[in-house]
Amino acid sequence: MIDTELELLESHACFGGVAQRYQHVSASCQAPMRFSVFIPPHQSGDKLPVVTFLAGLTCTDETFMTKAGAQRYAAELGLILVAPDTSPRNTRIPGEDKDWDFGSGAGFYLDATEAPWAKHYQMHHYVTSELSALISQHFPMSSQRQGICGHSMGGHGALVCGLHHPEQYQSISAFAPVSAPSQTPWGQKAFSHYLGPNQNQWRWYDGLELLQDSAGTNHTPILIDQGRDDPFLEKELKTEWLGALRDDRLRLRWHEGYDHSYFFIASFISDHLAFHAQILRS
Amino acid sequence: MIDTELELLESHACFGGVAQRYQHVSASCQAPMRFSVFIPPHQSGDKLPVVTFLAGLTCTDETFMTKAGAQRYAAELGLILVAPDTSPRNTRIPGEDKDWDFGSGAGFYLDATEAPWAKHYQMHHYVTSELSALISQHFPMSSQRQGICGHSMGGHGALVCGLHHPEQYQSISAFAPVSAPSQTPWGQKAFSHYLGPNQNQWRWYDGLELLQDSAGTNHTPILIDQGRDDPFLEKELKTEWLGALRDDRLRLRWHEGYDHSYFFIASFISDHLAFHAQILRS
Repeated sequence: MIDTELELLESHACFGGVAQRYQHVSASCQAPMRFSVFIPPHQSGDKLPVVTFLAGLTCTDETFMTKAGAQRYAAELGLILVAPDTSPRNTRIPGEDKDWDFGSGAGFYLDATEAPWAKHYQMHHYVTSELSALISQHFPMSSQRQGICGHSMGGHGALVCGLHHPEQYQSISAFAPVSAPSQTPWGQKAFSHYLGPNQNQWRWYDGLELLQDSAGTNHTPILIDQGRDDPFLEKELKTEWLGALRDDRLRLRWHEGYDHSYFFIASFISDHLAFHAQILRS
Repeated sequence: MIDTELELLESHACFGGVAQRYQHVSASCQAPMRFSVFIPPHQSGDKLPVVTFLAGLTCTDETFMTKAGAQRYAAELGLILVAPDTSPRNTRIPGEDKDWDFGSGAGFYLDATEAPWAKHYQMHHYVTSELSALISQHFPMSSQRQGICGHSMGGHGALVCGLHHPEQYQSISAFAPVSAPSQTPWGQKAFSHYLGPNQNQWRWYDGLELLQDSAGTNHTPILIDQGRDDPFLEKELKTEWLGALRDDRLRLRWHEGYDHSYFFIASFISDHLAFHAQILRS
């Protein structure tokens, strides 16, 4: 039996709804996990669409909720927002806190297969299955209407989760995603430790590969925003490679002068939530 | 000669404008000081109204800019936003970092008269004179059109700065202000160390006293928002004492369920900026 007990850590009135933070024991990750949630104002009995936001390297479940200014739009649009943490924490795996781009805060939203990470780092299953079921059980969510969004490492996560589970996620969006992690340093470092040296195992978690492989079979609409002054664009993100696919599912917008920060996310999150709401409410 | 050189620490495109962070050597505080600023999209040659936001205990110049979601509204309304730090830092005054409610992060926006604080803790003069002049010199600001806003300790600061300088600030607003610091623990602790034991010296920095003293002579409009579930209301804020004055200048709004957090500020900052803009642009 899965322990679905939630411990409420914080609760704040916000834009007529409520912003909360919970901890629970994750069966997938065999560790306590935290997540943040925003429930918009609604009527008793309502079942609301939900957008899950996956944050980037070094972030926690709190980052998006405190920095993106998303609640105002979610309140207007009637969307539940969910933000998981970016990895398990305090697992006692040696070296888990040593690097900022690997281990704690850098779970890459995948299910690790290699020791010692495999025991706890099961973030893909956690996000797409366990957390989604937990939200559905405890909050007024319509499990038939889910979108997924993310930033940087979380943009990679949104592409991978969304493209592998079209029955679950009807809309995908990303800010400055790690678009081809098999070919860029953050991704290669993470994949080699979490998934091992066999690069055939990496393809399942590579947004660029997935977009190519799913052309014609998966029809989920994707919105991506990318700043042209993003310092990680050239070496880590390679967002232009997604654009080069000329994939009809993908709307890729370039923004002059914008960088990789939450000031960029805040500036365009309203468009992302409107994109998700338009699909999820149709 | 005052050294008005600004060192740019960060610059991010944001809502069509720019969010920046600067450091400079403050003549008032005889220390390096940091501030954050948002410049909305504007035409060359424009002179824009400015709202200075004073943050609360433990905050820095970054807190409001990252957590309040204010830039969207400032961009729409054509307002410059300025957020100073909450105290000088790294002054080498013994014990400056010992307490979270006194010293670093807790300058209380006053000009200290007591050793060892008086040398550096000159935040009232810094905010109302030095920083204001610096912004006017370096940014497209109309020095004739200034409003001041703040939260908690910064709400106290906004009331005191605004009420003492009606020629400078045409509008005042506050979230959950420390309304009567002479009579509440945070204020009494700070005032006794910064201003000494003579409570006659404290009156100049007490919002409740100032409102009473300036009735009929000062006509600056004041907007205050207060959450009814604010855990500091009963012991530290005493916002109801302001309401009890039945002062025509003051519009005090109570919000059921809201607490002391930035989720509260984010929920109502649009009303505050609209309030300031309506006065400053008239």
